[in-house]
Amino acid sequence: MTADSRPKRYAYLGPRGTFTEAALLRVPDAAGAEHIPYATVPAVLDALRREEVDSAVVALENSVEGSVPTTLDELATGEPLQIVGEVHLPVSFALLARPGTKLADIKTVASHPIAQPQCRRWLADSVPDAEWRAATSNAEAAQHVADGHYDAALAGSFAAARYGLSVLAEDIHDVADAVTRFITLRRPCPPPAPTGMDRTTVVAFIGEDHPGALLEILNEFSVRGINLTLIQSRPTGAGLGSYLFWMDFEGHVADARVGEALMGLRRVCSDVRFVGSYARADQVRPEIRRGTHDNDFTEAAAWLQSVRGGDH
Amino acid sequence: MTADSRPKRYAYLGPRGTFTEAALLRVPDAAGAEHIPYATVPAVLDALRREEVDSAVVALENSVEGSVPTTLDELATGEPLQIVGEVHLPVSFALLARPGTKLADIKTVASHPIAQPQCRRWLADSVPDAEWRAATSNAEAAQHVADGHYDAALAGSFAAARYGLSVLAEDIHDVADAVTRFITLRRPCPPPAPTGMDRTTVVAFIGEDHPGALLEILNEFSVRGINLTLIQSRPTGAGLGSYLFWMDFEGHVADARVGEALMGLRRVCSDVRFVGSYARADQVRPEIRRGTHDNDFTEAAAWLQSVRGGDH
Amino acid sequence: MTADSRPKRYAYLGPRGTFTEAALLRVPDAAGAEHIPYATVPAVLDALRREEVDSAVVALENSVEGSVPTTLDELATGEPLQIVGEVHLPVSFALLARPGTKLADIKTVASHPIAQPQCRRWLADSVPDAEWRAATSNAEAAQHVADGHYDAALAGSFAAARYGLSVLAEDIHDVADAVTRFITLRRPCPPPAPTGMDRTTVVAFIGEDHPGALLEILNEFSVRGINLTLIQSRPTGAGLGSYLFWMDFEGHVADARVGEALMGLRRVCSDVRFVGSYARADQVRPEIRRGTHDNDFTEAAAWLQSVRGGDH
Amino acid sequence: MTADSRPKRYAYLGPRGTFTEAALLRVPDAAGAEHIPYATVPAVLDALRREEVDSAVVALENSVEGSVPTTLDELATGEPLQIVGEVHLPVSFALLARPGTKLADIKTVASHPIAQPQCRRWLADSVPDAEWRAATSNAEAAQHVADGHYDAALAGSFAAARYGLSVLAEDIHDVADAVTRFITLRRPCPPPAPTGMDRTTVVAFIGEDHPGALLEILNEFSVRGINLTLIQSRPTGAGLGSYLFWMDFEGHVADARVGEALMGLRRVCSDVRFVGSYARADQVRPEIRRGTHDNDFTEAAAWLQSVRGGDH
Repeated sequence: MTADSRPKRYAYLGPRGTFTEAALLRVPDAAGAEHIPYATVPAVLDALRREEVDSAVVALENSVEGSVPTTLDELATGEPLQIVGEVHLPVSFALLARPGTKLADIKTVASHPIAQPQCRRWLADSVPDAEWRAATSNAEAAQHVADGHYDAALAGSFAAARYGLSVLAEDIHDVADAVTRFITLRRPCPPPAPTGMDRTTVVAFIGEDHPGALLEILNEFSVRGINLTLIQSRPTGAGLGSYLFWMDFEGHVADARVGEALMGLRRVCSDVRFVGSYARADQVRPEIRRGTHDNDFTEAAAWLQSVRGGDH
Repeated sequence: MTADSRPKRYAYLGPRGTFTEAALLRVPDAAGAEHIPYATVPAVLDALRREEVDSAVVALENSVEGSVPTTLDELATGEPLQIVGEVHLPVSFALLARPGTKLADIKTVASHPIAQPQCRRWLADSVPDAEWRAATSNAEAAQHVADGHYDAALAGSFAAARYGLSVLAEDIHDVADAVTRFITLRRPCPPPAPTGMDRTTVVAFIGEDHPGALLEILNEFSVRGINLTLIQSRPTGAGLGSYLFWMDFEGHVADARVGEALMGLRRVCSDVRFVGSYARADQVRPEIRRGTHDNDFTEAAAWLQSVRGGDH
Repeated sequence: MTADSRPKRYAYLGPRGTFTEAALLRVPDAAGAEHIPYATVPAVLDALRREEVDSAVVALENSVEGSVPTTLDELATGEPLQIVGEVHLPVSFALLARPGTKLADIKTVASHPIAQPQCRRWLADSVPDAEWRAATSNAEAAQHVADGHYDAALAGSFAAARYGLSVLAEDIHDVADAVTRFITLRRPCPPPAPTGMDRTTVVAFIGEDHPGALLEILNEFSVRGINLTLIQSRPTGAGLGSYLFWMDFEGHVADARVGEALMGLRRVCSDVRFVGSYARADQVRPEIRRGTHDNDFTEAAAWLQSVRGGDH
Repeated sequence: MTADSRPKRYAYLGPRGTFTEAALLRVPDAAGAEHIPYATVPAVLDALRREEVDSAVVALENSVEGSVPTTLDELATGEPLQIVGEVHLPVSFALLARPGTKLADIKTVASHPIAQPQCRRWLADSVPDAEWRAATSNAEAAQHVADGHYDAALAGSFAAARYGLSVLAEDIHDVADAVTRFITLRRPCPPPAPTGMDRTTVVAFIGEDHPGALLEILNEFSVRGINLTLIQSRPTGAGLGSYLFWMDFEGHVADARVGEALMGLRRVCSDVRFVGSYARADQVRPEIRRGTHDNDFTEAAAWLQSVRGGDH
């Protein structure tokens, strides 16, 4: 199965009404496919690995549902999966309650533990006496409200309809313009064709405590004119001084400059995992530095061949 | 108040029985002080900011209680606080239940959402039919078990005594040797005196989309022979292309090489926040590169003065 | 004696009529001073060291009189002297002969050995049958022509009047727009005041065979935003793998960015010799990179002090 | 004709008795071939270009006969030639005179202008009253002494026999252990086979005033673990800010790491000239950095292919 074929079944972090489901609804290829919720990010990924589904959607960055470190670690060190696309979704929390509920009635507010701090200024101002309750997901919190266990839930406004709730207040998160980045996954496959506005993700492992290793890695990108868009260091779990770096950068593995940089990483790191090349959701076209276009690489290779053959 | 005075009141992420409380019990200066639990990391930090307490302990890295992104973001962009120490605690989960419970009896297991994936292989093997339930903290999960709401909880074995529970199984986490790093915080103050085995934390802000900015920042460290121990990029929330880098590195702000590197960061970044210099919990003594000892800086400054004065 | 006082006696590479004398005539402070010719570059420099003169002028780069390697090595490893100014002189050779001589009469052409290759295309075309003869300097060649030993000399056209010769042809050098750079020297002294369009020269010694040493040195400049204008590696004469680098770069030792870079060199090299800061003859004003102005350094130092004091 | 065939005719900087001839006598392939002296370095190189000879020997570094800048500039910008080998010769000057001459008799000492400064301390001590006279080469100086024009010559002791002179004093140069590096040249050809102890020479052109260009170039080497052994910046003669860098470095163009670095140079520079790969005379075997062996490149290329094909 290639990255360009249409999946029939998608796994996502459920239940219905999560931000992840909202992201899945924006994936063009997912229209018409079956959407299957799973309770945790590892469960979503395992469903894909076990071929219960053909594709999966999870949050990667700046999550509103707490899945980020799990996602990174699973994709970095679990059985390999591959990113084939991304969706950016504005972070926008609403306060959901049963129809007829008033702000003054609210004694308990439920949400995923990651959601609460993102709304805490609004909560302190608007429902200062309400107590907060933890839920497995914001959607589950909404279900608990529908069931009468709690008075209100922090969730996306799109979850209201799913659970028969009303939106008491919208845009109640403290930081404006935050965006969550979701990714579409497949089992390892040929990457989708380059669009000219692509992103590539790799995980680089540093096997021993190696001062200067990060600088060495970044130089492999820099010398080929490639800009990073995300970097996270994580312990590998294999003991002190053993690190991995999750790195997102501009370009596609089919680009000559990216290919050479990846081979460079492969040579200097104890291991490298290719996690995917895919179209950027923000459609930013990279500025390709002088001397790093594909045809610059082709010309240079021809010149090297002539030099080695004595024909220059 | 200086970093070397003994605080009388410590805030921590509660309730009693969390890993954070276990870390606090290892802070030498906290012996004899009052320990006050708060429900969320932001609440812990605000208690310190509002001077309800003199110090606070929260998790920073590889957390078992989900506080890491919140901690980073709060310390990077909230009202300033300062790290004055750290504690490393092995990640070690136990399965807690009411005395007399057997594995075969367990139908529900509660924990913080971050704990579940860390034990999922063990759970799948040992209690394959048990359903998982979310709690605000692992300690709260233990409380729910004590209260009879759930059958078992994932938590540190030290929580058993607090809640009158038994340890059904120990060391049930999937990855061996994982460590969580906790930090001790104060309001901004003179840093604790250098020990020769110190770590420094800063947050560097990149104000505009600036390709190569990260390499530029790392060069400021590299040229003074300073090794990074942690790097995380985070969006600042101020729009696309606006990033901050959380960086931990070897050395103390009182060291000449660290001072010059920090001034370099200050000059090339749109902003830099000093978050603290403090003794390393792992007591690793850095290898100081030739030419970067304090006396090398002193000798070079004297030489420059002689050159500028024409006396060389 | 400071660099800003007017010297009374100047040494230069003679005899009268050399390009070096032409350069000396362009030094503003040399007007009215005594000009004393010496036979070799080492003799010129020794005269300054022995205080027979107050200043000296020699060629440094792209010489027409063969002095460049000698000048570099003498200033790098001989008893210290200091560059306090520079003069750029276009390379322009003329063919000088006794009045009445015609091109067809010329059987011998004399010059310094460095001059001949610079005019060889013209010589091959215009006097193809003439034989070349070596002289200690082009001016001495002119003297030999005046004395009747040879038929013509390659020299600056300004030498014609000195030796009673005629200019048979002008601008006979093969490469247009070449420029020779001459320097004015003093014994070690406070540098002349910065003009904002300055150049600094240093010699950096690498004491052992140290792979990557050059990159390390260049990073000390790069990280402070300083551009090099000349670099030459030379063996030190102290055995294999022992190198020195002669480096000219933008800026003045009084600039904060230059001072910090020089201290960095001093710390990482086995030795550094400061050779001078002086106004550029080409009056190029450097583009000062963001964050490397003197006031950026001042602000960063104040910030570091506040951080170290706990007052941030 | 390949670099491995035996030339029949060699050009060298004459006349007989120069250090260049002494170097030529050490070239294994030159045994039995015809040795033809030319008067200047450009004449030597032109003889090779015009196919009057099959090979040529000239000095490249630390010359005793003044040919170095000429050699660099000719090979960098003249009609292309290729280095196929090198010879290192200790710098060792002798004072030659007609048999029977005593030190006290010497009133004039002749030499190439580059030789005089290298012996000036000895001359000042031993023949303080002798005057120095310029010659086109040290060998020509010896001829002049044989002809009775001058009393003594500075030259290699091997020149004494050629001109019927005696060696009055040996090892009279001021700096011990200096070595001159000579190169063997051919017209462009396939390079000699790698020996594992090779050196490669290239000339890199910077077409516009490009701050940071040198650092960019050095990074192309550094990122592939290649050490430079010589670097010289030279103006190209094409106007201000237009530079070339002559660079010698460890390794052979047939090595994967060298090939990739050369392609990198080719892409970032306005032009690159390959000047040759050849066995090092000092037989230093480079330390090949982890990850830069040929088989590391082969493995990385295979991995990249599997990633691009979705087969990883």
